[in-house]
Order: sequence, then C-alpha cells, then structure tokens
Amino acid sequence: MRKPEILMTPGPTPVPADVLLAQGSPIVYHRGPGYAAVLRECTEGLQWLLNTSNDVLTYTASGSGGMECAVVNLFSPGDRALVVSVGNFGERFAKICTTYGLDVKLLEYEWGKVARAEDVKQALEPDIKGVLIQHSETSTGVVNDIESIAAVVKDHPALLVVDTVSGLGATPLMVDEWGIDVAVGGVQKGLMMSPGIAFVSVSDAAWQANETAKCPRFYLDWGPVRDAYNRKEPENPYTPAVSLYLGLREAVRLLREEGIDNVFARHRRNSRAVKEAMAALGLDLVGEDLDRAVCVTAVRAPEGINGDELTALVRSRFGIVFAPGQGKWKGKVFRIGHLGYIDAGDVLQAMAALESCLSEMGYPAKPGAAVAAAEEVYAQR
Amino acid sequence: MRKPEILMTPGPTPVPADVLLAQGSPIVYHRGPGYAAVLRECTEGLQWLLNTSNDVLTYTASGSGGMECAVVNLFSPGDRALVVSVGNFGERFAKICTTYGLDVKLLEYEWGKVARAEDVKQALEPDIKGVLIQHSETSTGVVNDIESIAAVVKDHPALLVVDTVSGLGATPLMVDEWGIDVAVGGVQKGLMMSPGIAFVSVSDAAWQANETAKCPRFYLDWGPVRDAYNRKEPENPYTPAVSLYLGLREAVRLLREEGIDNVFARHRRNSRAVKEAMAALGLDLVGEDLDRAVCVTAVRAPEGINGDELTALVRSRFGIVFAPGQGKWKGKVFRIGHLGYIDAGDVLQAMAALESCLSEMGYPAKPGAAVAAAEEVYAQR
Repeated sequence: MRKPEILMTPGPTPVPADVLLAQGSPIVYHRGPGYAAVLRECTEGLQWLLNTSNDVLTYTASGSGGMECAVVNLFSPGDRALVVSVGNFGERFAKICTTYGLDVKLLEYEWGKVARAEDVKQALEPDIKGVLIQHSETSTGVVNDIESIAAVVKDHPALLVVDTVSGLGATPLMVDEWGIDVAVGGVQKGLMMSPGIAFVSVSDAAWQANETAKCPRFYLDWGPVRDAYNRKEPENPYTPAVSLYLGLREAVRLLREEGIDNVFARHRRNSRAVKEAMAALGLDLVGEDLDRAVCVTAVRAPEGINGDELTALVRSRFGIVFAPGQGKWKGKVFRIGHLGYIDAGDVLQAMAALESCLSEMGYPAKPGAAVAAAEEVYAQR
Repeated sequence: MRKPEILMTPGPTPVPADVLLAQGSPIVYHRGPGYAAVLRECTEGLQWLLNTSNDVLTYTASGSGGMECAVVNLFSPGDRALVVSVGNFGERFAKICTTYGLDVKLLEYEWGKVARAEDVKQALEPDIKGVLIQHSETSTGVVNDIESIAAVVKDHPALLVVDTVSGLGATPLMVDEWGIDVAVGGVQKGLMMSPGIAFVSVSDAAWQANETAKCPRFYLDWGPVRDAYNRKEPENPYTPAVSLYLGLREAVRLLREEGIDNVFARHRRNSRAVKEAMAALGLDLVGEDLDRAVCVTAVRAPEGINGDELTALVRSRFGIVFAPGQGKWKGKVFRIGHLGYIDAGDVLQAMAALESCLSEMGYPAKPGAAVAAAEEVYAQR
C-alpha cells in the first residue's frame, strides 16, 4: 500500500485535500471577472495574514524569486545594504545583493543564533539604504524578533526587508504596526499550499525607492504587477499559475475558518510537543530563543549517528519526511518541520517513527518516551 | 448550471481532466527519488517535443520569465542583438533586451506579416551576437518559417533564440536539426497544461556564451538549474511548483499516447475548419502564410462591429472564450485559438456561437454557414 508521505520538513508542507481539489479544478481564463475575483481574494487574504494595508504583489515563482524581487526593485548597483544573516537564507540574501552589484555589509551570526536589535543598531551606518533579514530562518529553525529589530530600523532612513517565507501563517508578523517596508513570502509553508507563488508587500517608502532603483528587472518588476492589479478587473501582467491561485484562495479560506489565533496556537503546541519529545529522548536542540522557533525544530544528531542517514531511514521506514541539515549542518543536525497542515496526530506518529529508528540505529531511545512527552503537551489545554 | 468556459484563446487552453487530477494529487517532496522521477520524465518529454538532446532547464515562471531567462543568460550589456518582431511578443523581446542594456537592432514587420529569411540575412551585421524571434507570434497568429531563418543564421556566429511558447506541441520545431541555440517554451499552450512552468533548451554554443554573459541574474540563472538537475536525484535549485510538474508529466504522457503526428494533424484540421468557417461568414483573416498559422486565427471584425464587444458577447452567451486583439489590433481584430486540448466538437460549438452572436450584433451571418463549412473540413479524412 502506498500512502502519501507526511512532509514534516520546513516546506513544502502537506496540502489539505480541499486545496488539492481546488488546484485540480478546471482552469479559469486569466483575463476577466472570474479570475479577477480569485486574484482579489488571494491578495486580500495575504494582506490579512501580513497585517497590512500595503499593496501585495504576487508572482509565479519560488520564494527565492521573491527575495530577488525585493532586492532589484528597491536598490541600485553600488547601494549599501545591511544583510543580517543567521543561516542559509541570510547568505542567500547577501548573494543576491552581490549579484546585482550592491555593496553588502554583512552582520553574520553563527548558525543557530538569533539576530539582536542592538547589533543591528550598531551596524546601521548612515549610508545604508536597506536592512535585509529573515523572519524565520528555515535552515536553523530560529525566528528573529522582528518587532525589536524593526524598532531600531525605524530611527534610520534604511528600508526594512523581511523574508517571512517560512514564518508567515505560523507566527505573527505585523507589517504595518512594526513598520516593515517589504515582506517577502511564499505559499508552501504556513499557508499550506503547494509551492509556486511568491509575494511581496510594498510600503509607500518602498514604492518611492522603487522609482529610482536602477537594478535591471523585467519579470520581477513591481510596476507592471501593480498596474495590472489596478485594472477594473484585477489581473497579472504575465500569464499566472492560475491553478495555484485557485488553491491559494482555498488555503486562505481554510485559515480564516480555523481562525488565525488558533493557527498560531496549533503551531506553538506542535512545536512544544516536538521539543519536549526531543528532551525525553535526551537529544539536544540547536538554536536560540526556542520558544519563538515554532516552525522548525533543529536537533543535533546524537554521537555516532549521521543525521542524513537517520532522516533517510525515517522516510523509508515510515513515510515521514524530516529535513537533513543544510550547509554547515549537513549530517550533524536534522530538522523537524511542524509547519502548515500538521496536527497532533502527525506529530505523535512522527515521534514514534523517530524513536523507533533511533533504536534501530543503536541509540538508547526508551520506546514510547518521545510519544509520551508529546502526549503530555497535547493533554494540557 | 455552470459549465467550465471553453478556452479558445491563444493560451491558456483547456486542461484535460487527467492532468487536473494529477496536479491535484498529494504533493511529493521535492528532494528525493519520488520527485526526481517526475522531473526526469518532464524533462525528457520536453526534449522529445523540442526534438533535441540539448539540456532543457525548467523554471517556475510565466513564459515571459522564460524569455528574460534566455536574454540574461546569453548576453552582456552593450551586446548587439537582432530582434525580429512580427507582433507583441517580438516587441517584448526588444523591451527585455533594452532593459538589460543590450544594443537592439530591430527588424520590425507590420503586425500580421511573417519574417523573411532574406531580410534576416541582410540585417545580420558581423557584430551581432544573437537573433531573437518568435516561432508562433501569439498576438497575430502567424507562424514564422524558423527552418529557413535558422538556415541563414547558421552561416553567422550569432546565436539563435526562438520563442516557441505558443508554437510547441502544435507545430513542429526541430531544435537540433535546424540549429536553434535556445528555444523558450511554456506549458499552457500546445502542451495543454495549466500555466506556471517555463523552459529553455540550451545548445553547447549557448552554454559557451553563458560562461561570459554578464547580465546580472539569480533566480533565472542557468548554472544552478543544470547543477541541481545533474545530481544523483535530479532536482531544482529552488522549491519548484511540484503540483504543476505532476500535471506536466501527465500532459506529456497524453501527447505521447495521442502520437505527435496526430497532435499536429489535429491542429492543422482545427485551424482549417476555423478558417473555412470564417470564409463562409465572409469574414477576412489577418496574417500571412495562413497554412502555417495552426495555433491561432486572427479575424478582422466586420465593419461596424467592435471585436472586443463580439468576444465579450460570445463569452457571456455561450461560455466560449475567444481573445480580443492585443495592442494595435484592439477592437479591430479578434483571435480564435485552436491550440492544445481542443477537438472538433469544441470548434463546431464555437462556430455556432460565433455566427449566432454576429447575427445578434446585426451582421448578416447566414445561420449554420460557419458550422457547415467546418463540418466539411472534418468530413475529409
């Protein structure tokens, strides 16, 4: 028998059947009232999730396309940008900036650390035009305290760009209240959609910067996306992934139905269940401020066990997909995603699979210990 | 009752139920053997359709993203490029080149004309690095004779870039035999898939040019896509639109099952049926070399009838979507797509809808005339 694998990765996450049905429904022509209503509902849903009244522009692209989109629309070659990096995706922001000839000042933390507002304040020299940072850093699981960092950037003319690809829908991001100029997101994580749509929210100050930004861009250019959206019937400038927009509309409806506070509470509960289970197994977590790390839990592979082999075994034996360590953490760390369409049943099953595979690999895991610890978290109401 | 609209536009086209089911099936994790097999089958299918053994790289993007991808990976600012334009998408190629600082020599034809090999030969000055042209020009319906144009470019060091977004799968394109360095395609036209994947084939000469091409690029960069594909388990460098790849695999299977010669014959037959029907109604076709124009038929709106209003009426009364004229042809021309998942029944229904709406708008269409003319084409075997 073949059941779909359970994606407990930092994304994509499993997709609800209602969303799959929506994205498998007959295609709607992308010019005209039918699609206009879909695009409008998707956009309003994203504004709701981002807590913003700013424009939200959507693209048929991966999240990395969304990150590039923020850089090329705000800056010109030679501009100084402060990239705050706490892992793989911070490094990616730096790479994109360098690709376009920006002068990057890198505020780099060891993997697993979170960024500190006071460091950002220190690093913010007068000529810096933008600060780029991750909300949730997918590679390490940590979640930066964007509110405190936004507060220090507010006193400086630099624009604040936040990559919330793996954070949005799992933990709050208050774009307007905190003063985020550009938030970059993707739909395949907390939004429990299949991948393929990236989006950016654009503040007034960001639109102003866009007017003089000289990085070359065509497909990712903001202007045509806004202009097409502002037509009588909102549309995209280039043929969009219509089916994915149909799925996104459904995903937003499901999130509204669950209630966003319940969604966040579910993420906190799943995260706590996983973290308690790891403690019960005697495994070390990696990362700072772990109460905030509600999307992904990074776990140090125990002495003598390779994290890549462990995740491969859990996948092949039980059909549960954890993510191996990225970059510097390859083999040493494995990552358990509890992001998006994941419930208590998924977590309990995954904890059972993990303790069983650890035993098989020779680690002294007490059978039932991880599951019992997770159960206890779910028993607290 | 609400039936899905029939998309007789130049794309997207209707999507077969098997493809919709595939793209609505549970998501496959994009790292590992399951997705690797999907990506491999999609890529091999595209190579088969393009008649090439060159690398074929796929992107989560619209076709316009694919066009930009060709430009930024081959050229450097200041390079001279010959853009051969016979309509809206030729103009788009010129715009993309200009955006990236290329020096564009424009060989521009009146809308509706096809490009001539002798003109291209004349225009090919020694310092020109690339020739960019459409296979099927979606805005006018004409199909350029790429074979003859490729033959003259072969005698010159310039690279040949062909946009076959709306041509591929409807009419043959022999990438290797004709010597096309980069073919740009999309899946939402002849491939009868929902939109969201763009692709490029890359010849050895194109890879060589890529090594020195200085246009900045990140998401659309070729190198990382090739490197990820060449891993033990092929993958994409950034999270792909997994669901659309599942759909594309199914679409390729359907095309193989039908047989590519049958697919082409179906397109020729549908095109002829539409063109004979227009003649029976006394309507003028726009465009040259109409035997080749098997994807889209552009029709001049009769005196006193606005093409936009006509297509709106056909859509609202019968749920059949024709495309209005783009750019210079707005209101004056309407376009009937017979591209992708369209059969005789769709065409007959559409011809009936059209003659009925023309009558309603005061045009002296003889009831049944268009349908009878189309029937006659289908009766010939």
